[in-house]
Amino acid sequence: MNHLNLIFGGAGFIGSNLADLLGAQGHRVLIVDNFINAYRNSESGSDRIFSTIQLDLSETRDAIDALKPVLRQESEIKLWHLAANSDIRIGQESIGVDLKNTFNTTLTAIETIKEFAVSEFIFASSSAVYGDFQGLPFSEDDNDFKPESNYGYMKLLSEYAILARKHAYKNTSIRIFRFPNVVGSKMTHGVIFDLYKKIQINSREIEVLGNGFQKKPFIHVSDLIGAMLYLNKVDSKFEIYNIGPMDTGIEVREIVELMINKIQPDCIAKFGHNLGGWEGDIPRYSFNIEKSKSAGLKVDFTSKDAVIRALETLNLED
Amino acid sequence: MNHLNLIFGGAGFIGSNLADLLGAQGHRVLIVDNFINAYRNSESGSDRIFSTIQLDLSETRDAIDALKPVLRQESEIKLWHLAANSDIRIGQESIGVDLKNTFNTTLTAIETIKEFAVSEFIFASSSAVYGDFQGLPFSEDDNDFKPESNYGYMKLLSEYAILARKHAYKNTSIRIFRFPNVVGSKMTHGVIFDLYKKIQINSREIEVLGNGFQKKPFIHVSDLIGAMLYLNKVDSKFEIYNIGPMDTGIEVREIVELMINKIQPDCIAKFGHNLGGWEGDIPRYSFNIEKSKSAGLKVDFTSKDAVIRALETLNLED
Repeated sequence: MNHLNLIFGGAGFIGSNLADLLGAQGHRVLIVDNFINAYRNSESGSDRIFSTIQLDLSETRDAIDALKPVLRQESEIKLWHLAANSDIRIGQESIGVDLKNTFNTTLTAIETIKEFAVSEFIFASSSAVYGDFQGLPFSEDDNDFKPESNYGYMKLLSEYAILARKHAYKNTSIRIFRFPNVVGSKMTHGVIFDLYKKIQINSREIEVLGNGFQKKPFIHVSDLIGAMLYLNKVDSKFEIYNIGPMDTGIEVREIVELMINKIQPDCIAKFGHNLGGWEGDIPRYSFNIEKSKSAGLKVDFTSKDAVIRALETLNLED
Repeated sequence: MNHLNLIFGGAGFIGSNLADLLGAQGHRVLIVDNFINAYRNSESGSDRIFSTIQLDLSETRDAIDALKPVLRQESEIKLWHLAANSDIRIGQESIGVDLKNTFNTTLTAIETIKEFAVSEFIFASSSAVYGDFQGLPFSEDDNDFKPESNYGYMKLLSEYAILARKHAYKNTSIRIFRFPNVVGSKMTHGVIFDLYKKIQINSREIEVLGNGFQKKPFIHVSDLIGAMLYLNKVDSKFEIYNIGPMDTGIEVREIVELMINKIQPDCIAKFGHNLGGWEGDIPRYSFNIEKSKSAGLKVDFTSKDAVIRALETLNLED
């Protein structure tokens, strides 16, 4: 029997794109999601390729019980854990949000490995685990983690939770991928998404968080998924990879300029006075991506290209 | 103003002993506990030295809100975080128990540091974080953690949660103490406690979990507290210490023999056939305690002495 792609958070931004691609390639896909902050609709039905289950992955025991009838008959499962609170700013209000939606869902993913025939486990981690290195590039070998946001904090503790159990899952190959800013069709958050919403409300003037000199690496969701699919195949039981573009990032000012020129050329952008856009933000960071390149990943995409491609599909989303 | 000793889990076994000692020394003590599995009664009232607050420390936001009126006026707080699910076996049934009572209470402790004037933070961790080293002694430098029990897993993730925030709390000195088996008056669990309950039910014959060749280091609660008080004073902002006896442990068979001779000399002990007493148990382990000795801690207590002293106060507990 064909293996099953089980996607936790498969109705979200990256999960939806991944599900579409795997489905288009003829792979079986089961999406498990709470369908909050979702691109895909839970009513979209099931067919030979796609099926969906709506449940709260933060309640481990209930979730495992609910998944049992479906998963126990599967002989090979590839588990993609993309479920998380994706709104970093909302998570700053209380640790409970990221605890529930980012950390507890990871415990459920780990229990899923224990309970069912999971051959590959892929965890979507984040640059936010590193914290503020004052723009110095993060490497996978750095372990002086000091996450600023509750989001990064719970992504880091999720990584540790996986690490502390890896001896128990000898038949599962594990990948932890640390993502930079990800953009593309079906976005549900982030600077491009936010600014686009603001232009819809007031097309003459928009307010930008921070002074615009924030600089971060961006990747297009299709390049991110391609990188994950490639790095999954590396012959190793356990690896952590940064996935990022070939450059060190793009400044928010340039994103704003590209966006206004594309969408609303006469719109005026008003910038803030501080570098930090919001509490928990890491205003400047970059990735060392030598490890993924050494594994043979071809990195020929830039942050600017990612932004330009994301702007092209913006109008299609409403 | 005199500093406040804030004891999370202060109604439990170790917490009660600590509260009594600090109180006897004239220090102010505030016990915060859910008063489940508690030695001390929540109705015991407050005086100049002791006060108690009953609340669920696993709900971070609610707990911080409830503590605010009391703690915001304090200018120096020593926070002892001893709240946890102390029954390792019960925790094996579902990860939710240790997640809630061990991990989530630690997140509340970390938020407490952030919100209030905490000068010292002491966290009660465990030998269970290391996992099964086949009896080889655990050292604080070992970091190939593979906890077997959910208890050890959540103690380890609690340590990581503290570690990942230590950069944020520059004014707080932090101690993580890893305990061996702890015994003494006011025990609420553990091999001596269990066997004593069994003798109460059937004084002629008791069943012992495992074959009796389990070997573990034991410490008496009074020695443990003395060690913590000493190691708190070491001039360092952040340290992790194993706290243990001078020997490598005592076998369960010897504990059973000491106990029967003391309590019920004609009782017959029936042993199991396997080394492991129960799922999640580490049947043989020992501590490397060189680090605490190098810090000047005088370790002149043995596992056997701890057991003998614990047996002496058993009858006083009912």
